[in-house]
Amino acid sequence: MKILVTGFDPFGGETVNPAYEAVKLLPDTIAGAQIIKLQVPTRFALSGTVLEAAVNEHRPDAIICVGQAGGRSAITPERVAINLADANIPDNAGDQPMDEPIRKDGAPAYFTSLPVKAMVQKMRAAGIPAALSYTAGSFVCNSLMYTLLYLIDRQYPAMRGGFIHVPYAMEQAVSKPLGTPSMELHQIARGLALAVEAVVENERDLTVNR
Amino acid sequence: MKILVTGFDPFGGETVNPAYEAVKLLPDTIAGAQIIKLQVPTRFALSGTVLEAAVNEHRPDAIICVGQAGGRSAITPERVAINLADANIPDNAGDQPMDEPIRKDGAPAYFTSLPVKAMVQKMRAAGIPAALSYTAGSFVCNSLMYTLLYLIDRQYPAMRGGFIHVPYAMEQAVSKPLGTPSMELHQIARGLALAVEAVVENERDLTVNR
Amino acid sequence: MKILVTGFDPFGGETVNPAYEAVKLLPDTIAGAQIIKLQVPTRFALSGTVLEAAVNEHRPDAIICVGQAGGRSAITPERVAINLADANIPDNAGDQPMDEPIRKDGAPAYFTSLPVKAMVQKMRAAGIPAALSYTAGSFVCNSLMYTLLYLIDRQYPAMRGGFIHVPYAMEQAVSKPLGTPSMELHQIARGLALAVEAVVENERDLTVNR
Amino acid sequence: MKILVTGFDPFGGETVNPAYEAVKLLPDTIAGAQIIKLQVPTRFALSGTVLEAAVNEHRPDAIICVGQAGGRSAITPERVAINLADANIPDNAGDQPMDEPIRKDGAPAYFTSLPVKAMVQKMRAAGIPAALSYTAGSFVCNSLMYTLLYLIDRQYPAMRGGFIHVPYAMEQAVSKPLGTPSMELHQIARGLALAVEAVVENERDLTVNR
Repeated sequence: MKILVTGFDPFGGETVNPAYEAVKLLPDTIAGAQIIKLQVPTRFALSGTVLEAAVNEHRPDAIICVGQAGGRSAITPERVAINLADANIPDNAGDQPMDEPIRKDGAPAYFTSLPVKAMVQKMRAAGIPAALSYTAGSFVCNSLMYTLLYLIDRQYPAMRGGFIHVPYAMEQAVSKPLGTPSMELHQIARGLALAVEAVVENERDLTVNR
Repeated sequence: MKILVTGFDPFGGETVNPAYEAVKLLPDTIAGAQIIKLQVPTRFALSGTVLEAAVNEHRPDAIICVGQAGGRSAITPERVAINLADANIPDNAGDQPMDEPIRKDGAPAYFTSLPVKAMVQKMRAAGIPAALSYTAGSFVCNSLMYTLLYLIDRQYPAMRGGFIHVPYAMEQAVSKPLGTPSMELHQIARGLALAVEAVVENERDLTVNR
Repeated sequence: MKILVTGFDPFGGETVNPAYEAVKLLPDTIAGAQIIKLQVPTRFALSGTVLEAAVNEHRPDAIICVGQAGGRSAITPERVAINLADANIPDNAGDQPMDEPIRKDGAPAYFTSLPVKAMVQKMRAAGIPAALSYTAGSFVCNSLMYTLLYLIDRQYPAMRGGFIHVPYAMEQAVSKPLGTPSMELHQIARGLALAVEAVVENERDLTVNR
Repeated sequence: MKILVTGFDPFGGETVNPAYEAVKLLPDTIAGAQIIKLQVPTRFALSGTVLEAAVNEHRPDAIICVGQAGGRSAITPERVAINLADANIPDNAGDQPMDEPIRKDGAPAYFTSLPVKAMVQKMRAAGIPAALSYTAGSFVCNSLMYTLLYLIDRQYPAMRGGFIHVPYAMEQAVSKPLGTPSMELHQIARGLALAVEAVVENERDLTVNR
């Protein structure tokens, strides 16, 4: 099995992005699956282009995009991406779309095809705070997840894809307001590796309550 | 103009639901619009039936459903409802759907047709914490919002509809962990009244960033 | 009975201070006690001077100083003031003491003589989130509380005194990060009035667990 | 130099206490100082007895007691202990003191003699969220810190002593409400080691603002 794992570059004034920093820490093989790592730019337009090129090149069995959700205390696989781009801050190219669809011919939303409940269960069993999330927001993270699931829907129905949001790295929380939760980068990477394992082990998601 | 405003009955061990308590406090006329108030049960199946009957009977110009989002500090109009019912706790009828679509023939999601940015702006200008939300969860709140927007899509395309989540009432927060935010019921009602005004005043939503 | 209730003026870039705004809303008589209201400056040195002058002039039976604790969700009577001034930001006179004692000949700390458990119980019974606090910080709030209790210790042993921290007013939370709790000003005033009642009704504090 | 570092055993229904778990991970020598590790019981009376015996036996140059502060996101050296025991839950011996002084002949409070600002600065420089705290609460943590500083005040004026509160371990946060911050145990241990280094390196605390 071949799994593409992407992480964003820093944005919003940060000097690191825990998403790609953690992705870099992943081993090259997890549970027998080959891991392909890719940094994507925090840019509405280009992130999708870069992802699409990598998917076309590598034809992975599954794609997991990873992004930073500052303020969350847990690793949160996303269930759904919505066809809406609405940015509070400019992306790294200076683009700031407002109330725009991501794909004019796309569905209003796409649900992830990753086994998100299995991922959460596996991380929690290993002592890592994890939870399902029902919103990837309306910035570049949601946009990339939507673009991925649109691509799968149109061209690669056998591929599985989705998105995982991760907390701030500890280093980032040092300069944030007291009370801001964070997670150490190697722990984020450990959680991501377990999530990858869940993808390898679960063709279909668990039928469990969270 | 005629506006139907609904609020849920208590659930999850609570003795009150700030949603309907606040709806009850609304005047019968706001900005010239007639307000019709309706309590709906916190039940997956019945809530939609009760709402649909009221819509068919009153043929309102707009429908605003209101629900409790314990732990939020602000009044949060929802942008989108997703076609997914996945309950962590049983509803008031004991039903606890898991990973089920709400309408098998429905879209994956429906966006609200209410002017949610105008609502938020109006509440904030009046000193009431308010913000857009991109998830109504996967319990009965999302289910009712989805059912409403499905109904509008299929039968009443000229109607506008959506959902607003409100914080715990102050009385509820007394018995919650220290730090749990809340809002006084009359303030929630004041916020809802301003949201109704925004519906009356804005045929289309504002094109602004949040 | 005569009760002096003070509130600070705005500081730290705020245009209002919910403390004095709420104090202004108090009636002139509560539970038979005469209420004297006083605004004090958010200045290390001057706040104590202004308070001391008012105490000398009015000889109240009890003094309740009120201050803003931005980020708290509940009204929190303070149990103890410490002999330490250590400021992260300048006060309204530009003073920013670092690791200094407030009174060189003072005790390391003074405990409040107000019935704080009775106050909390009374507010909670009325549906107002309230809790004991064990720190008034190291800025002007703690300094004023310490100065008051030092004055009582040295000159007015029959007087009772203490401090209550209150949340941001709702209007303030509008421009704070999403999630910041707040309380409507009339509710803060209602809580303070109940706290005053508890002072009138309880010569000694309740012997209860929180 | 010889430094005694203590950590509590689990309490309040927890199966681990991150305090002693992290203390156990410390090396036996830090910055040239010998580290003596001691588990203390979460019991009002016995914790002090056990600590006092160890101090009498080892005559350390400095003592750092460590405890769990569930809900905090950062490692927080405490500045002050107050002469008050007031428990919301029973300790591990079933004792639940209410509004009692810890030492009838003790000062109202003792300030730590550890270089807490240097500790915080050193941890933050290493990417570990850390902050000063002004309250150790009124349960066993405060009681042990107070007992230590009382002992130093009466018998060992050349010793330095204080207390550090640490967040939940990640494993604990898994079963706490979503949003509960935590820190990985090795990171807590890394922070504690840096705090010990700060004690070795700083005879007196830094004169800096936080």
